[in-house]
Amino acid sequence: MNTGIIGLGLIGGSMAIDLRRRGFADRILGVEADSVNAAAALKIGLVDEVVDLGECVDRCDLLVLSVPVGAALRMLPQILDRFGETDGRCGKTVMDVCSTKEQLSKAVHYHPMRARYVATHPMAGTEYSGPWAAMPGLFDGRACIICNQEESDPSAVHLVEKMYDILNMRPIYMNAASHDVHTAYVSHISHITSFALALTVLDKEKNEKHIFDLASGGFSSTVRLAKSSADMWVPIMTQNRDNILTVIDTYLEKVNAFRKAVEDFDEDAIRTLIEDANRIKRIIR
Amino acid sequence: MNTGIIGLGLIGGSMAIDLRRRGFADRILGVEADSVNAAAALKIGLVDEVVDLGECVDRCDLLVLSVPVGAALRMLPQILDRFGETDGRCGKTVMDVCSTKEQLSKAVHYHPMRARYVATHPMAGTEYSGPWAAMPGLFDGRACIICNQEESDPSAVHLVEKMYDILNMRPIYMNAASHDVHTAYVSHISHITSFALALTVLDKEKNEKHIFDLASGGFSSTVRLAKSSADMWVPIMTQNRDNILTVIDTYLEKVNAFRKAVEDFDEDAIRTLIEDANRIKRIIR
Repeated sequence: MNTGIIGLGLIGGSMAIDLRRRGFADRILGVEADSVNAAAALKIGLVDEVVDLGECVDRCDLLVLSVPVGAALRMLPQILDRFGETDGRCGKTVMDVCSTKEQLSKAVHYHPMRARYVATHPMAGTEYSGPWAAMPGLFDGRACIICNQEESDPSAVHLVEKMYDILNMRPIYMNAASHDVHTAYVSHISHITSFALALTVLDKEKNEKHIFDLASGGFSSTVRLAKSSADMWVPIMTQNRDNILTVIDTYLEKVNAFRKAVEDFDEDAIRTLIEDANRIKRIIR
Repeated sequence: MNTGIIGLGLIGGSMAIDLRRRGFADRILGVEADSVNAAAALKIGLVDEVVDLGECVDRCDLLVLSVPVGAALRMLPQILDRFGETDGRCGKTVMDVCSTKEQLSKAVHYHPMRARYVATHPMAGTEYSGPWAAMPGLFDGRACIICNQEESDPSAVHLVEKMYDILNMRPIYMNAASHDVHTAYVSHISHITSFALALTVLDKEKNEKHIFDLASGGFSSTVRLAKSSADMWVPIMTQNRDNILTVIDTYLEKVNAFRKAVEDFDEDAIRTLIEDANRIKRIIR
C-alpha cells in the first residue's frame, strides 16, 4: 500500500520505520515543510520520496497526519477537500496522531468527506523530535486511542485498526471530548510540571555544573519531558486550554498542601500526602 | 575489612553487594530495626550477620549509616559515643549517606570523636526501597558528595574516598549548608513535584484504567519518584525545610506563569516558557 506520512518527525518517522519493515507500507511518501528535516528523512531512509501535500494525497491510499496539532487543524480540511475533488466515492483514508482531538473533530464534523477521516492518538513518544529521533518499536505494547469512530466509515476505521495492530498497539475507543479531558490529566499536566521544574532549577541554580553533578536518576527522569518541543506543545496547550486549566488548579492545590505541611513541620501531614501519592504504584510500574 | 551497614535498604544493600563482589568488604555485618527486612537481607545474602548496633560498632572498621535521616540524627552520636568508649584513639570510621547534611553535621560538630565521621551523599537511587530493591552497579559513574571534610580526620576521609572509588563514584567536595541548598534545588523539589502530580492524577482521574491506558512513557517517567517512601522523605522535608520552601515558591511562580499564559491563549508566552525550559537539554542527557 502507498502510505503518505505528513510530518516527518518522531511519530511519523517511527511509524514509517515499522510500517515498512513489517510489510504494511510498500512505498512511503513524505510531506515535510522543513527542508532540513525533509533531506534528513530521505537520507536516513524513512521515506522513499518527499513530495508536496497534493501529490501525496493523490498517490497514497492511507495518509498519516503527524504534524503539530495547529498545522493539523489547517491541513486536515485541505486533505478532505482533495479527497472530494479526486473521486466522488473516495476510498482513501486519512488519520491524524495528534494529542488533542476535540477541535480537530469539530473542524471537519460537517465536511462531506468526514467519514474518510479517523481521529487517533497513539500513546507513545519520547522527549526528542525530528526525523533523527525516529526509532523502531516505539509503539510496541502501548495503547492507541481511536476517537469518535462512529463518524468514520467502517472501512477507514478497519484500515487504521489494521495499521495499529501491525504497530502492536492496543486500541481504546473514546469520544474526542473525553480524550481531551483524560489526556489533560495524564499527559498534558506532566509536561507542564516538568517544564516548570526545569525553569525552577535553571532559575535557582546558577551553577550548571552543580545541576549536572547533583542530578541523580530521579531528577533526570522528572525533568525529561522539559526537553519537549515548543512546536508540538504550544498548540496542545491552547487547544486543550480549559481542561488544562482545571488540572493545573488541582495541581497547584497539591503543591500548596505540601508547602503548608513542610512550613508547619507537620510530619503527619507530609506522611499522609506521600502515602496517598504512593498509590500510583498500584497503577504505574 | 569488616564493614557494618546500618540500615539494610536500597542504598545500604546496594553498597553491600558491590563492596563485597569488588573485594572491599571481607565480612559485612548489618543492623536493621525491621525484622522482615533483616530476615530478607540475610536470605538475599546482602550481609553475613545481622547484629545490634553496639556489636556492629565494636566489630567493624567502617560503618555505613544508611537509615532515614531522622534515625541517623539519633544514631550518629550514639556511634561516636561508642567509638570514644572502646578506644581513646579510635581508628574506626563512620560515614552516613543521607540526603540532608547540615543538621547531622551540626549535631556532632563538638563531639570529641567528630573527626572519625565523614558526611557523604551518593547521588544515586531508585524510587524503590527495602533490601529487595538493592542492586549491583547502582552507584557506577554517579557523583558522591563529601561534606565538611576538613572536620574529618584525613585517614577517615581517605578510607571513605577509597570506598567510593571502588563504587566507581566521582567525589565532589562541598560544605553541608551548600549541599542542602543545592539538593533542595535539584533533588528534593523534583520529589515534591512528582508526589503532587500523582496526587493530582489520582484525584482528577477516578478511573484507574484510564491512567494505566493513557500513561505514555512520559507520564510514567515524571511520576516515578512519587513511589518514593515516606520513611525516607518525611525527615528530609522537615530537616531541609527552609531551602525547600524557597524552591517551592519559585516553582509555584513557574507553574502560575504557565497557567496565566494558557489562560490568556498567549502562544508567545507559552513558547518562551517552553524554550527556556528546553535549556535543560544542555545539562541533562
